[in-house]
Amino acid sequence: MKVRDIGEFGLIDLISKKTKYKDILVGIGDDAAVIKTKGLQILTTDCLVESDHFKKEWFTPIQIGMKSIEINVSDVAAMGGVPKYVLVSLCIPKDLDVDFIEEMYKGMRKSCNKYDIEIIGGNMTHSNQIIISITLTGKVEKNNLKLRNGAKPDDFILVSGPLGNGRAGLRLFQKNLKGHNKVRLGYLEPKSKLTYGIKIAPFVNSMIDISDGLAPEIRHICKASACGAIIYKDKIPIKEDVREFAKTINEDPYDYALYGGEDFELLYTVSKENLDKVEGFLVGEITEKKDVNLFFKGKEKTIIEKGYNHFSKQRLW
Amino acid sequence: MKVRDIGEFGLIDLISKKTKYKDILVGIGDDAAVIKTKGLQILTTDCLVESDHFKKEWFTPIQIGMKSIEINVSDVAAMGGVPKYVLVSLCIPKDLDVDFIEEMYKGMRKSCNKYDIEIIGGNMTHSNQIIISITLTGKVEKNNLKLRNGAKPDDFILVSGPLGNGRAGLRLFQKNLKGHNKVRLGYLEPKSKLTYGIKIAPFVNSMIDISDGLAPEIRHICKASACGAIIYKDKIPIKEDVREFAKTINEDPYDYALYGGEDFELLYTVSKENLDKVEGFLVGEITEKKDVNLFFKGKEKTIIEKGYNHFSKQRLW
Repeated sequence: MKVRDIGEFGLIDLISKKTKYKDILVGIGDDAAVIKTKGLQILTTDCLVESDHFKKEWFTPIQIGMKSIEINVSDVAAMGGVPKYVLVSLCIPKDLDVDFIEEMYKGMRKSCNKYDIEIIGGNMTHSNQIIISITLTGKVEKNNLKLRNGAKPDDFILVSGPLGNGRAGLRLFQKNLKGHNKVRLGYLEPKSKLTYGIKIAPFVNSMIDISDGLAPEIRHICKASACGAIIYKDKIPIKEDVREFAKTINEDPYDYALYGGEDFELLYTVSKENLDKVEGFLVGEITEKKDVNLFFKGKEKTIIEKGYNHFSKQRLW
Repeated sequence: MKVRDIGEFGLIDLISKKTKYKDILVGIGDDAAVIKTKGLQILTTDCLVESDHFKKEWFTPIQIGMKSIEINVSDVAAMGGVPKYVLVSLCIPKDLDVDFIEEMYKGMRKSCNKYDIEIIGGNMTHSNQIIISITLTGKVEKNNLKLRNGAKPDDFILVSGPLGNGRAGLRLFQKNLKGHNKVRLGYLEPKSKLTYGIKIAPFVNSMIDISDGLAPEIRHICKASACGAIIYKDKIPIKEDVREFAKTINEDPYDYALYGGEDFELLYTVSKENLDKVEGFLVGEITEKKDVNLFFKGKEKTIIEKGYNHFSKQRLW
């Protein structure tokens, strides 16, 4: 059955379900959702665009749904917060199978359940590409709220885990290669670092999630904090699988880590005093001088201004 | 200059500005926005899709921006609430002029200023069509919160203003006709009924905004309230301009009102005791019997299941 056959009432029935939290006064099915609130609320929104962020030939609809939630949870994690409620705004072609939408929702619910997030509203409309626009709210304690602008000279720069899998997986699919199943799965099913973020938040000075590559993300922190940075290239953690894959197609895995995207690890800066209170991989230092440099084989070079830019090039071709 | 030339940092600069409310701890420019909250919060999301909800040949970018805010304010109005904060998720083609985006934002800000709404966050990404996904939050007092499910048998059904202009304007552009400037402007620059909604909210039993035509909207109320309705066709308010336009192309203006869309008037039901406390046009009554009927020339007929369906047919062609 196609979307065109089921109509709006049918679609609403498809996605509606009773909400479980008592703070939700009105869930899916009215003009808007209504929730009880108190304290600091985080609000973030991010889109997944067909052909740009995913291809139907590569991802299952469940994986698309999961990814749409994970990338937004990653933003809440980067603020030191805990996600709570989701609004799903879906733009879908008329000839899409209704099963496909059901599966996408299954994926969204799967990730939502993992984080105790509730889908409280949304809307559906027609478009040429599938576009999933997610708005996620969360809560944060004042002491845990960490921004891009808190980095200080001499802070250490850390990342929460290995980088480069996002871009490696993309290259794998672009080149239509077999094998490399861990790289493949890491790309298809990225996971946010929510628990990790909550744990380290009280001890860090600044934090951001790595959705566009280490280079542009550290530049975001430096710009917001009015400082610079040195990244030690050979300290950047990259998994053996990713290195092996890069080798097979003669590409540099450090390019994936620095200028690729969609790793959804956390990037954060920590003062010397707090360094032993956090986990992570130390990859550099914050400097007073405002340049962002890459240190490699005894030489510093300026990190060139590339990275996943949504406009200067397209993602999937 | 095109979007592809300016890059992500340029785009962020373009849309960032200092926020004016002290309850906004973090506005545009971090991983997420952070606000202080207390009490009942309304959350709604709605998309404007190029070719489906607007055409660049018909609307100025300012009008597109204004419309994207108005349609969401209309949802908050229909809950009896007051809008507060907006997140803007923009999907744009790479070859779009940067000026066009600036003008769209000008339109959004124009409508936001009117309602004292602040843009606190969002994101931009690439797509084939322009898609503006807006998430709007608002506040509501418990006594003012009115839903679709509160209608009671013998309630009177009222609308806040004349209907049919949304569809009439669309037909005007589809047929590429000159003149009819009031109809044209009513379509290009719809206005939400926010002040009106706040005023009547304490006295109504149920409320919804008319984005898809009177017929489907009253069906929404009846379905949620487990009741039926009679609409008196000749009581439906339709402006003289709309009637005249419909006549020139031999169409029925009541079809525009019942099954058209984008009028953004409020539809609400009121008990006999409260009837003198609200303004509006009385168009029908809620019944215990669950059918939704149209009364015309002494005869009742079931309201057929049409209206603006986002999938069974496309909007603009």
